[in-house]
Amino acid sequence: MGYEHAESFTTHTPLPKRADTVSARISPAGGLDVLSRNEVARLRDASGSGLHALLRRCALAVLTSGNISDDPRSMFEQYPDFDIQVLQQDRGIKIELTNAPGQAFVDGQIIRGINELIVAVIRDIVYVSAQMEQGAFDLEDSVGITHAVFEILRNARILKPQIDPNLVVCWGGHSISRDEYEYTKQVGYQLGLRAMDICTGCGPGAMKGPMKGATIAHAKQRRRNNRYIGITEPGIIAAESPNPIVNQLVIMPDIEKRLEAFVRTAHGIIVFPGGVGTAEEILYLLGILLHPDNAGIPFPLVFTGPAEASPYFEQIDRFLRLALGDDVASRYEILMGDPITVARSMVKGIDRVRNYRLETKDAFFFNWALSVPFEFQQPFRPTHEAMRSLAIHRDRPRHELAADLRRVFSGIVAGNVKDEGIRAIEERGPFEIDGDPVIMQALDALLQAFVQQQRMKLPGGNAYVPCYRIPGGRRSPAVKA
Amino acid sequence: MGYEHAESFTTHTPLPKRADTVSARISPAGGLDVLSRNEVARLRDASGSGLHALLRRCALAVLTSGNISDDPRSMFEQYPDFDIQVLQQDRGIKIELTNAPGQAFVDGQIIRGINELIVAVIRDIVYVSAQMEQGAFDLEDSVGITHAVFEILRNARILKPQIDPNLVVCWGGHSISRDEYEYTKQVGYQLGLRAMDICTGCGPGAMKGPMKGATIAHAKQRRRNNRYIGITEPGIIAAESPNPIVNQLVIMPDIEKRLEAFVRTAHGIIVFPGGVGTAEEILYLLGILLHPDNAGIPFPLVFTGPAEASPYFEQIDRFLRLALGDDVASRYEILMGDPITVARSMVKGIDRVRNYRLETKDAFFFNWALSVPFEFQQPFRPTHEAMRSLAIHRDRPRHELAADLRRVFSGIVAGNVKDEGIRAIEERGPFEIDGDPVIMQALDALLQAFVQQQRMKLPGGNAYVPCYRIPGGRRSPAVKA
Amino acid sequence: MGYEHAESFTTHTPLPKRADTVSARISPAGGLDVLSRNEVARLRDASGSGLHALLRRCALAVLTSGNISDDPRSMFEQYPDFDIQVLQQDRGIKIELTNAPGQAFVDGQIIRGINELIVAVIRDIVYVSAQMEQGAFDLEDSVGITHAVFEILRNARILKPQIDPNLVVCWGGHSISRDEYEYTKQVGYQLGLRAMDICTGCGPGAMKGPMKGATIAHAKQRRRNNRYIGITEPGIIAAESPNPIVNQLVIMPDIEKRLEAFVRTAHGIIVFPGGVGTAEEILYLLGILLHPDNAGIPFPLVFTGPAEASPYFEQIDRFLRLALGDDVASRYEILMGDPITVARSMVKGIDRVRNYRLETKDAFFFNWALSVPFEFQQPFRPTHEAMRSLAIHRDRPRHELAADLRRVFSGIVAGNVKDEGIRAIEERGPFEIDGDPVIMQALDALLQAFVQQQRMKLPGGNAYVPCYRIPGGRRSPAVKA
Amino acid sequence: MGYEHAESFTTHTPLPKRADTVSARISPAGGLDVLSRNEVARLRDASGSGLHALLRRCALAVLTSGNISDDPRSMFEQYPDFDIQVLQQDRGIKIELTNAPGQAFVDGQIIRGINELIVAVIRDIVYVSAQMEQGAFDLEDSVGITHAVFEILRNARILKPQIDPNLVVCWGGHSISRDEYEYTKQVGYQLGLRAMDICTGCGPGAMKGPMKGATIAHAKQRRRNNRYIGITEPGIIAAESPNPIVNQLVIMPDIEKRLEAFVRTAHGIIVFPGGVGTAEEILYLLGILLHPDNAGIPFPLVFTGPAEASPYFEQIDRFLRLALGDDVASRYEILMGDPITVARSMVKGIDRVRNYRLETKDAFFFNWALSVPFEFQQPFRPTHEAMRSLAIHRDRPRHELAADLRRVFSGIVAGNVKDEGIRAIEERGPFEIDGDPVIMQALDALLQAFVQQQRMKLPGGNAYVPCYRIPGGRRSPAVKA
Repeated sequence: MGYEHAESFTTHTPLPKRADTVSARISPAGGLDVLSRNEVARLRDASGSGLHALLRRCALAVLTSGNISDDPRSMFEQYPDFDIQVLQQDRGIKIELTNAPGQAFVDGQIIRGINELIVAVIRDIVYVSAQMEQGAFDLEDSVGITHAVFEILRNARILKPQIDPNLVVCWGGHSISRDEYEYTKQVGYQLGLRAMDICTGCGPGAMKGPMKGATIAHAKQRRRNNRYIGITEPGIIAAESPNPIVNQLVIMPDIEKRLEAFVRTAHGIIVFPGGVGTAEEILYLLGILLHPDNAGIPFPLVFTGPAEASPYFEQIDRFLRLALGDDVASRYEILMGDPITVARSMVKGIDRVRNYRLETKDAFFFNWALSVPFEFQQPFRPTHEAMRSLAIHRDRPRHELAADLRRVFSGIVAGNVKDEGIRAIEERGPFEIDGDPVIMQALDALLQAFVQQQRMKLPGGNAYVPCYRIPGGRRSPAVKA
Repeated sequence: MGYEHAESFTTHTPLPKRADTVSARISPAGGLDVLSRNEVARLRDASGSGLHALLRRCALAVLTSGNISDDPRSMFEQYPDFDIQVLQQDRGIKIELTNAPGQAFVDGQIIRGINELIVAVIRDIVYVSAQMEQGAFDLEDSVGITHAVFEILRNARILKPQIDPNLVVCWGGHSISRDEYEYTKQVGYQLGLRAMDICTGCGPGAMKGPMKGATIAHAKQRRRNNRYIGITEPGIIAAESPNPIVNQLVIMPDIEKRLEAFVRTAHGIIVFPGGVGTAEEILYLLGILLHPDNAGIPFPLVFTGPAEASPYFEQIDRFLRLALGDDVASRYEILMGDPITVARSMVKGIDRVRNYRLETKDAFFFNWALSVPFEFQQPFRPTHEAMRSLAIHRDRPRHELAADLRRVFSGIVAGNVKDEGIRAIEERGPFEIDGDPVIMQALDALLQAFVQQQRMKLPGGNAYVPCYRIPGGRRSPAVKA
Repeated sequence: MGYEHAESFTTHTPLPKRADTVSARISPAGGLDVLSRNEVARLRDASGSGLHALLRRCALAVLTSGNISDDPRSMFEQYPDFDIQVLQQDRGIKIELTNAPGQAFVDGQIIRGINELIVAVIRDIVYVSAQMEQGAFDLEDSVGITHAVFEILRNARILKPQIDPNLVVCWGGHSISRDEYEYTKQVGYQLGLRAMDICTGCGPGAMKGPMKGATIAHAKQRRRNNRYIGITEPGIIAAESPNPIVNQLVIMPDIEKRLEAFVRTAHGIIVFPGGVGTAEEILYLLGILLHPDNAGIPFPLVFTGPAEASPYFEQIDRFLRLALGDDVASRYEILMGDPITVARSMVKGIDRVRNYRLETKDAFFFNWALSVPFEFQQPFRPTHEAMRSLAIHRDRPRHELAADLRRVFSGIVAGNVKDEGIRAIEERGPFEIDGDPVIMQALDALLQAFVQQQRMKLPGGNAYVPCYRIPGGRRSPAVKA
Repeated sequence: MGYEHAESFTTHTPLPKRADTVSARISPAGGLDVLSRNEVARLRDASGSGLHALLRRCALAVLTSGNISDDPRSMFEQYPDFDIQVLQQDRGIKIELTNAPGQAFVDGQIIRGINELIVAVIRDIVYVSAQMEQGAFDLEDSVGITHAVFEILRNARILKPQIDPNLVVCWGGHSISRDEYEYTKQVGYQLGLRAMDICTGCGPGAMKGPMKGATIAHAKQRRRNNRYIGITEPGIIAAESPNPIVNQLVIMPDIEKRLEAFVRTAHGIIVFPGGVGTAEEILYLLGILLHPDNAGIPFPLVFTGPAEASPYFEQIDRFLRLALGDDVASRYEILMGDPITVARSMVKGIDRVRNYRLETKDAFFFNWALSVPFEFQQPFRPTHEAMRSLAIHRDRPRHELAADLRRVFSGIVAGNVKDEGIRAIEERGPFEIDGDPVIMQALDALLQAFVQQQRMKLPGGNAYVPCYRIPGGRRSPAVKA
């Protein structure tokens, strides 16, 4: 199946107050050119394929854009009888919305940007499911996965030829402080003044600020054809629903393809402060960049935030150097509290990317040259068995270590905050990790700092307790107590 | 294989004078958005797949547009070392042309319209071959074939939503008299004044005149976004190379899909005088329209030409009434020598199409409602066996009779003018046809008239001799002597 | 002379720190189509005409856009050797900037929006001076003045045919509180969602907020061809330099023509909190709307601000009702703290305007039907003589009273805060005004409230002292003490 | 008065059959932005100003575009109760047409190109009359006249900045042979392929062919924003009504300003065969180019036609060399029967123009550098007195001689074919010209050849008789007998 996260949510908390709704039949705006009868039928067929549930889920996320809630369940509780149907009509198709969130409408008319995002949702769901059904993607193979990523992005018109490199991907937390948010707007503004386009993962916070800043700058520069690209996937779209400034949205089938879409389309990446998710993304990216095959490939990467956020990146920097060696730092630049310098550095870095692609005759719109090893393309499920098979030792090749670090990171977070992880720990005891104590302690320190900075919320309050032990007896949760 | 006609031609006549050539690397204009590495590799791979030969053949046809020759071989004789390669480059792809016909260039620069047509050729070849390779089309089934036609047209951006019905397909001969050509321009002019777009099969004569006339009318009406659509296939593109006025070209995989593409996209069809090919097309279309499933579907169809061409359509009309009954004529209108009335009638008919689609909520851009039976979607090879299995009797359902008539027509023409057919007759004697003598005689009369009007050229001169016999002894070639 | 305020400023305070400057030759962006040799010569001719000083002054205002300073002198002190020259060149004209403010540039490139505003400055200066020179405007006559306003707006391409009424003029203070500023953004956002365009007087505060909000809303609605119109004049452009979001700028020759331009192009007006200037504008507008000739003409007018700003409009409302009678309030609506309702009310009001213009066959783009009496088109210089000739009595026709009230208002403000006014009072004693004490006391109360709310700054601190007396002895400054 | 030729025609021949008419209220298409109430009133005011008659006359010419008649009277006879009114309306203005020629409409809808041309007519009439009324043009002075030409062209949006030189003016006869017409299409086609825009004097023949050819070429090159400029004036618009391909029309006030508009906007000129008018235009242009002030200014000038038309240009060439000296030929090139070479030569010449303007920093869109002496800007009325004051002697400066030659030419033509001229000769005898007999005889020979080639029609048949004598007795009409 193309999209794995299409499960429907069951309601287990009291229903919130029912929100205002609108029912309307809308004409798709923008790119949903033409559907075949088969495709319309596929979308209409609610029972069998699960596609309808996926469509309903993603459409609702788009329609509730701007709602402040991390809990995707609440969305369905608020709009329990929301439905969406696609109908073939004379001039093209129509989209029938029933009991849709009133906030997506202005005086009964749907906001055009939201209309376009719904069209993007339909387009991607139709396309990926049809390709999957036909077996058109070869997902058993690294090259095949990369081609699937390419095809989905191309179908979504994300890949634009004849445009000089100017796409800055911005990562960072979706729930950040007001100051941090204002700072992301400033950076977006400076990028926008310099004709950069913006790509983020959708949602609020560091995902929205740069787009908003760039919008104002682009208006001042009278720039049209701006691209505000959102790359999301079904598992997070509900929690991080796309802001309607996003004018190009693509729904990748899963987290790993979404990450690969980011690194293949980016001409440079800026990381703002975030939580553990942001740290994981940093490890994913550095794992790829440290791969020997990628040694000569320029890839501008800036960590930035307001001056007050310096501790966040200092800790990450310290951890990265400790775990991966000092020269990992040659792959990124930390520039705090200076949006203009950040923008200039990004422009300069992207100019190097441009020259490199010219020399190597590689596409501007897709970073074919970058090796993304198969292990980075595979999902990681943090079971006790999977955790035991990791090896956190500094004598390993750094890109392999980075890959395992990302996984251990992922597992520890699960063991601390996610239902499934917490239950597994309760049943089977702490994860056993074959790890270097120095690195593991540094990791603990990092997570603890996140908790203190309110960047990571623990279910039982603020006391961070490691959920793993290192078998050689060298380290165990008991030691900490 | 997607395209069946990609055989390369062998040279068996003296080489003509070598023509002026240009070698150039061009940037693709228009729609060739983005190719994947796989697709570029596929096009580059000259030896194995045969795609390169197909690409070379179609590209050369486009580049020699406007050359007056029915013989596709001469094209390759004139440009024996022409080659085309597709290269991945930084900003997109480049097309490398070697020893290309000079006529496609103006002072060393390729004519932009020709550039766009080459892009269309590449786009369709890449797309169809990839779909075929993946088994994405179900060609064993009528609905599957219709969907393949739809998908190819959609990929070529031929299907436009949000546009009111206005696409007039023009059929007719590619080598017609000066007067007939001027008349097709007049009709195109009157259609263009009325905001109609034009679709033809590419090539000169009745394929080019309406587009030229419409171009002038569209300029006077300040109409932009005009569509001059050419629908062709590999077997005829060389003989009927697309005029650069064509701004949307699609290369269908074979003749039957091309015909289906015409009838599914047309909002109305105008038939100008032509030869036997035109008569076959008329039988194909009437065969479909006479099918009971299509009884209520409006489909404006006008036969027209300058007053002097009246005999052509009178004979066809007589033959159709005789063979298929008088009420076949309710499906077409004959309007000679009056471009304004032709245009008005077409506009009125298309208005009925519009209302019908609105009522039935069918797409404007694709005639889903029309039944095209499987037998019309299948190629016919006129062997002795195949000819013997036809049954030309007026007691059959008319649409079946029309289908067989089209085939008998096709076979007789092959037996008279095509190498393969003539040889088969020489070896095995005349075709045996289970036919009603009255119809068969009428068919003879029709063909003879074509020969006299110079609309059909016989290899041995002007004496038309039937190449078949009717087994019941009621009619045989001997009788004629 | 077209522009009366082109006097150059003399420096009498210590020079501030010299700012970063850039010298560059730029190509005019946008509308400066073509200049004749005469026009280029006229602009180049620095000495004689004074046009060059005017051009330099206005251009510098545009280039320092965003600077926070009410004092236009500081602008010239910071950039004392700034210069601008217009040069005829092959492809059109070039603009030579010398020692221009660095803030208008991004990495050495001028911000395109600022470039366009400079072009607007040149265009208007050239046009008005040429028309004045030729005597093309008849300024002795009310109709002639209205035509001059029309011609200047037309030349600036402000008047757009074929657009439904949607232009909301926003008035209000340029130095308002953060909350008030955020509120103006909210209102602009809600207007933008409803496809309204925005027109203001340029500058910061209530002039900028609505445009910024509308920009984000227009982006979400994917609306292009948005209009952010700024109407200014030479006397205030330096203090209220146009934000680069302004994409259509016109420089009217004087304050009265600027005010007439507002009311003739507006389809509705929203007034945000401001200072005395805003109050004067309200009196100007109500004076016109109360004129019997304008009785039946719909003109949506909303006073709004955040809930906290209610006192401002309550006082104004009270004063207006007292002075002009309760039914003056039928001409405006006060809606506090509710941007959505404000936007809806404006949309509804503009719909009435639309219907009225359809019925009366009047232009959408220029409110020809509105009578603007000659006295409102004339500047008022508050001398002792002029003040003595006013008559503030409630038995007068209300529009005449409103006109005189506006003048008395203007005079009292001058007597309190403007150099010239203060000196005149010192020399010749308080103004004598033939006024109704009740109204005059209400006026005092209003001004005092402004001082307390920090909306009006007095030279000598916060003690407001009336600068006039009412001859009949009924009221004098002494009474107050 | 701006336009001098607005006299209404009186009917003195039997009325032709009344033609089909349409009455309609149309929305102006294209550039008629916005009119003031004054301007609408001015146009409406039928009686006083004569503007209404002028408007009616020009509008009718546009509406009868394509009619084949040299006699403007017939136009008014066919549509005696045609009228046009301009009305102010809500969204802009409306144009009310009463009893307008049916040929301008397609099924009741006006052809959009014709709509635009009517708008151009209104725009120019409004503008020129307003400028004249205000005394905005200084027509007593050569520079003033040039500025008037500039202002009228600018107001008509003919002058486009930011476009590289590409405007080819085509001159030639409006009633030429079929072969000559086809040849002008070929040249237009080759120019269009090379991205040239076309400017002519409107009307059929050599005025229309190049535009039609260029339209097809521009379509093949997918070129948009093409310019097909027509420059006309009230005295000839009726006889040479603009073809609707013309998408930019300007109506200059008189013949001399029209000629100046041609030479100031042209980047190069092509002359096709024509009649005496064409010969006069050649003398006008060479008179200017031979002026010493214009010595170094590049100005590509090609005489061309089909091979069969060679005699026409051979005779003109011979006459020019005889009268003005051999080196006059350095200013033009004669290229017969070769459209590609003509187009290439023009492109090359225009490239020299481009470089020259870059060097001299002159505008691309207006040839400011060219001196057009005052005498070329003045109309010439060929009275006996005026003719006597000419001096046709080879010892004069060549540009002065060329100017007088143009006048003698004009006078002789009037004396032979124009009512007024013929009557003057009948009353007062032949013109007396102070001329060199060799030149005068050559002129006779030239005119006689025109008559023989049917390029000039004499009232009394084919016998050309000189209508002048040379006082010194060296030559007189008697000699001829």
